[in-house]
Amino acid sequence: MNSKLKVIKDPPSKDELSNRLEKVRLLMEEENLDYYVVFDPINIYYLTNFAFYVHERPFILVIPKKGIPKMVIPLLEKGHFKLRAISDLEFIHYYEFPAPEGENWFDSYRKLLENNARVGIESTMPMGIAEKTLGKIIVSDIVDKVRLIKSDYEIGRSVHACRVANKGHKKLLKICRPDVMLFTIFQEVSQVMMTKIIQDIPNVNHYATSTLGAVWPPSMSHDPHIVPNVFQKMEEGGPHVSIIQIQVDGYGVELERTFFLGFIPDEARKPFEVMFKARALAYDLAKPGTIMSEIDKKVRKFIYDKGYGDYIIHRTGHGFGITNHEAPYIAEGYDHKLEPGMLISIEPGIYIPGLGGFRHSDTVLVTKDGNTKLTKAPEELEDVIIPL
Amino acid sequence: MNSKLKVIKDPPSKDELSNRLEKVRLLMEEENLDYYVVFDPINIYYLTNFAFYVHERPFILVIPKKGIPKMVIPLLEKGHFKLRAISDLEFIHYYEFPAPEGENWFDSYRKLLENNARVGIESTMPMGIAEKTLGKIIVSDIVDKVRLIKSDYEIGRSVHACRVANKGHKKLLKICRPDVMLFTIFQEVSQVMMTKIIQDIPNVNHYATSTLGAVWPPSMSHDPHIVPNVFQKMEEGGPHVSIIQIQVDGYGVELERTFFLGFIPDEARKPFEVMFKARALAYDLAKPGTIMSEIDKKVRKFIYDKGYGDYIIHRTGHGFGITNHEAPYIAEGYDHKLEPGMLISIEPGIYIPGLGGFRHSDTVLVTKDGNTKLTKAPEELEDVIIPL
Repeated sequence: MNSKLKVIKDPPSKDELSNRLEKVRLLMEEENLDYYVVFDPINIYYLTNFAFYVHERPFILVIPKKGIPKMVIPLLEKGHFKLRAISDLEFIHYYEFPAPEGENWFDSYRKLLENNARVGIESTMPMGIAEKTLGKIIVSDIVDKVRLIKSDYEIGRSVHACRVANKGHKKLLKICRPDVMLFTIFQEVSQVMMTKIIQDIPNVNHYATSTLGAVWPPSMSHDPHIVPNVFQKMEEGGPHVSIIQIQVDGYGVELERTFFLGFIPDEARKPFEVMFKARALAYDLAKPGTIMSEIDKKVRKFIYDKGYGDYIIHRTGHGFGITNHEAPYIAEGYDHKLEPGMLISIEPGIYIPGLGGFRHSDTVLVTKDGNTKLTKAPEELEDVIIPL
Repeated sequence: MNSKLKVIKDPPSKDELSNRLEKVRLLMEEENLDYYVVFDPINIYYLTNFAFYVHERPFILVIPKKGIPKMVIPLLEKGHFKLRAISDLEFIHYYEFPAPEGENWFDSYRKLLENNARVGIESTMPMGIAEKTLGKIIVSDIVDKVRLIKSDYEIGRSVHACRVANKGHKKLLKICRPDVMLFTIFQEVSQVMMTKIIQDIPNVNHYATSTLGAVWPPSMSHDPHIVPNVFQKMEEGGPHVSIIQIQVDGYGVELERTFFLGFIPDEARKPFEVMFKARALAYDLAKPGTIMSEIDKKVRKFIYDKGYGDYIIHRTGHGFGITNHEAPYIAEGYDHKLEPGMLISIEPGIYIPGLGGFRHSDTVLVTKDGNTKLTKAPEELEDVIIPL
């Protein structure tokens, strides 16, 4: 990992993808696997640069321990696949789902494996695919494991995605005023981000791109996973919580802030301060070598000790990569060490029904010595009280 | 099924959802299942009205053969779940993914099943969930089977979704002119549809709503699954193919047309005519009692006999329901009978590299006597040559 943070907007090189495959093969060797079968679209994208929606027609990547990986795709996707896949692959197409006898996806798929082979699969593989898989099946998420540590290229792409998030958030704070509808914010912020995305990456892959820019007003900010009514309006005071969650041409990041319009209610000062200090503690702890569950445990203890333990409803953070929600997890129960090149959120939160939610979230790179925030937006209390 | 087609925009009643559950239980009885476990978010939405994204935190619905179904959800979704779920359910929350020992999703999940029970699961269930499932596992897609035949309520919702599609398509044809960018069309058409959606259903569920309005210009209309560059422009002539694919508060439909700007190139006349007649044949055949694979076989034969067999790249149609791509399939290999209350696309296509694609697609209800198109847009050649 290079310490200089460049913005990268180009598609991955063949070498970048070969390196990823090489890492998968090292883990295959460790587990003595003859084949690894990749079904999860996220993992296929990671290894090939080819993104797609799965309806009922399966796409399956079969990696033998040696030789060129083979990909089973529906006929309808041949052109799309040739245009976007970058890695060295042989592809085999089947006609349709379903198809006349002998022309189904599993007819092609089963030819690529052997009965007495050791075949690794993902824990996300659907039963219906696993049932058609030949060989001795071993469930092992080795692509997910490789994805944990980012290459310089991936970091560069994430830095770019964060620039998009920063721009969206700046717009969001600019147009947030009492009585502005959630729908307006959603539309305007998404548009700013999408415009930057297509300007920066004209040939962006829309299958690997999404933009969410929203605000949870005080009446619902205590419930971060609710679906708001878009006609709901901003109000004076707070806490409001902003949410930017995006995937930019295959790279997912997020940026979230607790903020106030005009003034901060007195009863919001203490929970804001506790959240802010819990967050500072998490940043202090987020260093290579620290066990992630320990960070969560200490951060939760801090919040408990300040009297807000009943208002914790989620872990301290999660990973980013292709998606904006993936391993590693800064969570009790996740007893692995942080390593340089991991990309995580740091977002301890306090959620008080009747008062609101308190959470700042950033996309943070774990470095050799500690961590660096890739997203940027006001943080300190005086900077998140927006003057009216 | 009522023959009068009403527009319905309201959420489902408890009775509607109980009827769905009752049908699932009838199939459970046929297969002698003690429990059926639902993991697919689409099926959970169908049975509960609760929609969500699955990241790594599982949501699992366990239906016992008698008594109230139980749903395992993450703590973070408690408020969201209470707000949207309509059916009678008990819910059990777990703390997080991952979580301290004893507080993980599988700790809650495993308490709901027994070792010696017969437990039905979906073919889409991920291996990692199946591995934690107690009992004798039987893979059987019974919720998908129930979803095949629509209730009057579902038809009314789909009729509404088609009105949104019709409006979007009208706008699309209105703004399609040579040199207009794909991005403009995408944005304007999506906006018209989204505006109608939130006007009609202010409390729309955004987790179950999406709008795609796009045009494939002649240079790429032969390749319907490619991802276009949004800066690409409309051209004089054609064939262009329009694509409206939407999910409106949980109901998916589509509307697609082959059209021409200003004039039709001579070499496009014959393939258009063959597509048009193949489509008429499919409509003639689409009646209750007909085997779906037979329709596809006859339609393909018609296109083959006219000399375009090499340019068929997909089946005649697929089903709609919650999604805009699901069973049943009008496809060779799918040897089931059409039944009243099924909702399908009829869209035989011809795709000629260098010339373009030819496909009209509609959302079509199978009725007692035949079928009714729910979507509406110009069809005849003279109506799809847009004067400039």
